[in-house]
Amino acid sequence: MELLKNKILAEGEVYEGNILKVDCFLNHQIDCVFLSEVGKEFHRLFKDEGINKILTIEASGIAIGAFVAQEFGCPLVFAKKTKTKNIAGDVYTTPVESFTHGTTYNIMISQRFLNKGDRVLIVDDFLAIGNALRGLIKLVEESGAELAGCGAVIEKGYQHGGDKLREEGIKVESLAIIESMNADTGEVVFR
Amino acid sequence: MELLKNKILAEGEVYEGNILKVDCFLNHQIDCVFLSEVGKEFHRLFKDEGINKILTIEASGIAIGAFVAQEFGCPLVFAKKTKTKNIAGDVYTTPVESFTHGTTYNIMISQRFLNKGDRVLIVDDFLAIGNALRGLIKLVEESGAELAGCGAVIEKGYQHGGDKLREEGIKVESLAIIESMNADTGEVVFR
Repeated sequence: MELLKNKILAEGEVYEGNILKVDCFLNHQIDCVFLSEVGKEFHRLFKDEGINKILTIEASGIAIGAFVAQEFGCPLVFAKKTKTKNIAGDVYTTPVESFTHGTTYNIMISQRFLNKGDRVLIVDDFLAIGNALRGLIKLVEESGAELAGCGAVIEKGYQHGGDKLREEGIKVESLAIIESMNADTGEVVFR
Repeated sequence: MELLKNKILAEGEVYEGNILKVDCFLNHQIDCVFLSEVGKEFHRLFKDEGINKILTIEASGIAIGAFVAQEFGCPLVFAKKTKTKNIAGDVYTTPVESFTHGTTYNIMISQRFLNKGDRVLIVDDFLAIGNALRGLIKLVEESGAELAGCGAVIEKGYQHGGDKLREEGIKVESLAIIESMNADTGEVVFR
């Protein structure tokens, strides 16, 4: 998606440790005019997949998921992150290891909102190793719903999480795939 | 907003302790077709206020804020909740007491995303005592930006947080104000 690549080049900041900061338009301050276009692009890529539900994870995925769900005219469900071991009520839950924070947290969704017969598109802001996406995929499998595919706004191609999911036969679409970054020069190279 | 009132009556669930559960359309599963209308309604109510930024708080406020920002064609900023006392970087932060959870947490936003010259509309899913809104108002004041008003999807009128803000001269618009609820009968009475 050219609009996204241009935005990353113009507004993104590269830091040591392969960190790309895009909190000025994607995950703290949110450019909603731009995200409307992201929603349209994901709709174009997945419109023939019979999708009736969008799934994401709090907090950074919510605004993206909202605009995607608007295009599909279907509900968005977001998984909650929780540190409590004891989760009340009927929920699907699975642990997710956070590469960034070096911790493991549980994610959960109410069983009322994901069921057999649902065709689910999972969306998130970043795809790196793919731990969060794999957690969400587990929740979809546990629910008996069908996974239609995964969409990430930005994929860190050099961490190969997306490639592994594709090798497993999952339809994964990322709107920009970063092949390499240089914190010294600020250079970003796309695949 | 009649559409919202009908949705609360049809899909909301009343529990002991004055709890109204609307997680099937507002804050876990999100009805994005409905929320588009919420965005339009807040735009109608605040369109003459010179607003150039929408502010909300993670996680439940994000989808609402996204559709409001889409109507205004302006950015959304969401405050993050954090338990760490030491916040790195240049942020505005303030403590917020959670009535629901009986704890106090800090909310923060990066100073880059709220500044003098901004005219800010704060939106959230619920307005009860008003602690979260007051925290967000503090961040706006700290930044030197101007508060244009506050919008809540559902106000619990019997907790009077909205009334107090209005008495202080703040423009507060709620799309449905609940006067009373009955957990035994499931009855909801609007103001």
